[in-house]
Amino acid sequence: MKLYDGGRAPNPRRVRIFLAEKGISIPMVQIDLATLEHKQAGYTAINPYQQLPALELDDGTVIGESVAICRYFERLQPEPPLFGSGAKGEALVEMWQRRAELGLFLPVAYAFRHLHPAMAAMEVPQVAEWGEVNKSRALGFLGLLETELSARPFLAGDSFSIADITAGIALEFMKPAKLVLPESYARIRNWYEKIAARPSWAA
Amino acid sequence: MKLYDGGRAPNPRRVRIFLAEKGISIPMVQIDLATLEHKQAGYTAINPYQQLPALELDDGTVIGESVAICRYFERLQPEPPLFGSGAKGEALVEMWQRRAELGLFLPVAYAFRHLHPAMAAMEVPQVAEWGEVNKSRALGFLGLLETELSARPFLAGDSFSIADITAGIALEFMKPAKLVLPESYARIRNWYEKIAARPSWAA
Repeated sequence: MKLYDGGRAPNPRRVRIFLAEKGISIPMVQIDLATLEHKQAGYTAINPYQQLPALELDDGTVIGESVAICRYFERLQPEPPLFGSGAKGEALVEMWQRRAELGLFLPVAYAFRHLHPAMAAMEVPQVAEWGEVNKSRALGFLGLLETELSARPFLAGDSFSIADITAGIALEFMKPAKLVLPESYARIRNWYEKIAARPSWAA
Repeated sequence: MKLYDGGRAPNPRRVRIFLAEKGISIPMVQIDLATLEHKQAGYTAINPYQQLPALELDDGTVIGESVAICRYFERLQPEPPLFGSGAKGEALVEMWQRRAELGLFLPVAYAFRHLHPAMAAMEVPQVAEWGEVNKSRALGFLGLLETELSARPFLAGDSFSIADITAGIALEFMKPAKLVLPESYARIRNWYEKIAARPSWAA
């Protein structure tokens, strides 16, 4: 088993933090996103969707999509549970994982990819208006999130979960996307400081 | 327990088809998307994210996000498994469910929402260029899918799964989005005819 990793980019980090929380260590192969190595023939033969990370199992099966890779390890090693426990707990984690992704991670990524000059070769065509729309959407979601975090310590309840990883990485991704967390969002700031202080966050 | 349903829209249908596959019947409350009832105060108090469907449990917990609602029922009643079986099986379904959603469902939805005049009040602002970009992306994904379906009968393997529901609904959603499945994609056409003939598809 080996993980094709992509360094500091958001999705590779999501998976590495997840593995660190589980205490799982596996062999990694570095693919260089900066030189577009993920779009070259070698990696395309491994993952035709040209995305990172990807997990290659010993039988040759390649699992793409960060959340699918995380779920594979959740099933291999259920403790500590990072996808929730029980029908209701799992549904709440799935709900918040999706909201964090569709409401924050994706809008921040769109803002970055469609507005940042460094992404002109990667995101073709850049649609600046779409980038601007998503800046507003990300900020709108943060308003809802600030309210949510008054009710519980983590996104999906009393325990740290994959939803916190997705939202925390999205929050960091705001910097290159030139988005600023409003000063008044003290609960989001406290929550972020708490998760970023976890040993796994350095992964 | 009751399900806030939104009629013929794609997400409500995904959940109803899933429940029909499981043979589960639950009380439903109709929310009228056409009159924007989901954005009014009554429903916003139930789901502040103003999305449909939503599942209200007997303890008052509200589960939003179609895939989270489906996962709740998967845990309550595992048979037949629609999220895969075993670590590898579950990871493959998650991977294809996400690819179907991010590579097809979402691009088709963007094309519809950003280009169709009927969506002008719902999608503010409409970004026509973003709609056009997504028409190309949806068609690009269908090219990859046509190749994938040469290897197996369903998206994620030998069994029907939630990934087939997402991709099948996305394929139907192409019509209002004014996208046409290329004539040459015979495997996609065969796969779609097979899943649309299932009794659940009428849900």
